[in-house]
Amino acid sequence: MKQKLKILLTNDDGISAPGLYALYKEIKNIGEVFIVAPDSERSAVGHAITLSDPLKVTNFYKNESFFGHAVNGTPADCVKLAYWALNIKPDLLISGINLGANTGINIIYSGTVSAATEGMFLNIPSFAISLTTFTNPKFEIAARFARKLSRIILENALPPGTLLNVNVPAVQKEEDIAGVEITRQGKAMYLEEFDQRSDPHKRTYYWLTGQKVKLEQEPDVDDRAILNNKISITPVQFDLTNYNFLSELSRWNIQY
Amino acid sequence: MKQKLKILLTNDDGISAPGLYALYKEIKNIGEVFIVAPDSERSAVGHAITLSDPLKVTNFYKNESFFGHAVNGTPADCVKLAYWALNIKPDLLISGINLGANTGINIIYSGTVSAATEGMFLNIPSFAISLTTFTNPKFEIAARFARKLSRIILENALPPGTLLNVNVPAVQKEEDIAGVEITRQGKAMYLEEFDQRSDPHKRTYYWLTGQKVKLEQEPDVDDRAILNNKISITPVQFDLTNYNFLSELSRWNIQY
Repeated sequence: MKQKLKILLTNDDGISAPGLYALYKEIKNIGEVFIVAPDSERSAVGHAITLSDPLKVTNFYKNESFFGHAVNGTPADCVKLAYWALNIKPDLLISGINLGANTGINIIYSGTVSAATEGMFLNIPSFAISLTTFTNPKFEIAARFARKLSRIILENALPPGTLLNVNVPAVQKEEDIAGVEITRQGKAMYLEEFDQRSDPHKRTYYWLTGQKVKLEQEPDVDDRAILNNKISITPVQFDLTNYNFLSELSRWNIQY
Repeated sequence: MKQKLKILLTNDDGISAPGLYALYKEIKNIGEVFIVAPDSERSAVGHAITLSDPLKVTNFYKNESFFGHAVNGTPADCVKLAYWALNIKPDLLISGINLGANTGINIIYSGTVSAATEGMFLNIPSFAISLTTFTNPKFEIAARFARKLSRIILENALPPGTLLNVNVPAVQKEEDIAGVEITRQGKAMYLEEFDQRSDPHKRTYYWLTGQKVKLEQEPDVDDRAILNNKISITPVQFDLTNYNFLSELSRWNIQY
């Protein structure tokens, strides 16, 4: 008989986030669950790691069965700490369920994806899962898919240096999911705005605000699948070299 | 006669860092320099952006000629704010000169590279430049190369969605630079450790510590060029899709 699967859960919305709890409730049915997650929300932290401050780990109990380690660090910190300091060597890592999409170029700002990336660097099969809404989230729908996908990943094998980035559309009923699509990362550009204000001492400050997407028309990108109520799965790797440009850049003949 | 070049400088070591000042002293000879940089060190912040706090901008004067905008945010925040709020629309963006290497998978943790990435997203020709040492840095050597490379980038053209990630070896004399090499991002793996300690109240805390590199043997990677005292230039892009794996992943036939 096989040993019980060890599954590490983390996120960037913090250990008390409902998305993590929904994920836990499904995943505990297929293995032994370990939870190491930030003690508070760390969205848009990108792939930050904490070098200049010590990391503290606190026990966190939500109820009788949900126990986790809360870390005063980033999602990437949590995975490194789980593996190297808490000696958790999982068969699978799941990061999520994130409240809000992680599609297109947004994935480089995503703490959710960064945690899966750390897992991947440690040769742990890893995926990030996000629900593409901030309002009235039905995490259960995404959680059930996470459970199913976990099985599939463990039966097959991800190539080295590759994680899966999963986005689940914001439907209210399971039957409204229109299917699953293997996608590529979109390159939609963002127009950003800063809301300029004055504080009581007449000093100016700025809030980063509304991002307007110019959506690509290509059918096979992540955001397009979501628009069609499909779950998008993009295989993600981290060799950022622009190979197509290497030979032209060599012809620039740059000297010191 | 051509308009004067506008060049935006930023970094992740903070606006008062010597690497930024060395860069400024060279670059002011080729154009009008704008400086928007973090008010303090933001190393290893990855591609973080600040959504939950307001950004404040303070005037920073180092001496009569060096004026900059200090921002209580990340390198990515600085570039977004410079462009959208301070209305700086540069012809070129340079991020650095970073104290310490940004090679291999480290570039995903790099605030220096993230600033150049933001420039790239805004269609500004952008490069990140780092000096691969923490001790006795000779920023002048890297700064002179930054000036030269700026000219070359503006005479040629970077493809859309591509920045250059430059690392300069830690030599003490200019003549020890063994040349310039066009490289790809290395994939060297890291073994990490956490130093476990107890605070005065007997609570455990952890410091992330020593990263031991297993260096690749391939000759064309960034770290290898540096070892040979060459300046490495890697063209970097941010489509993270693992295209090679798309068709196999489709054959997994994942259903909801």
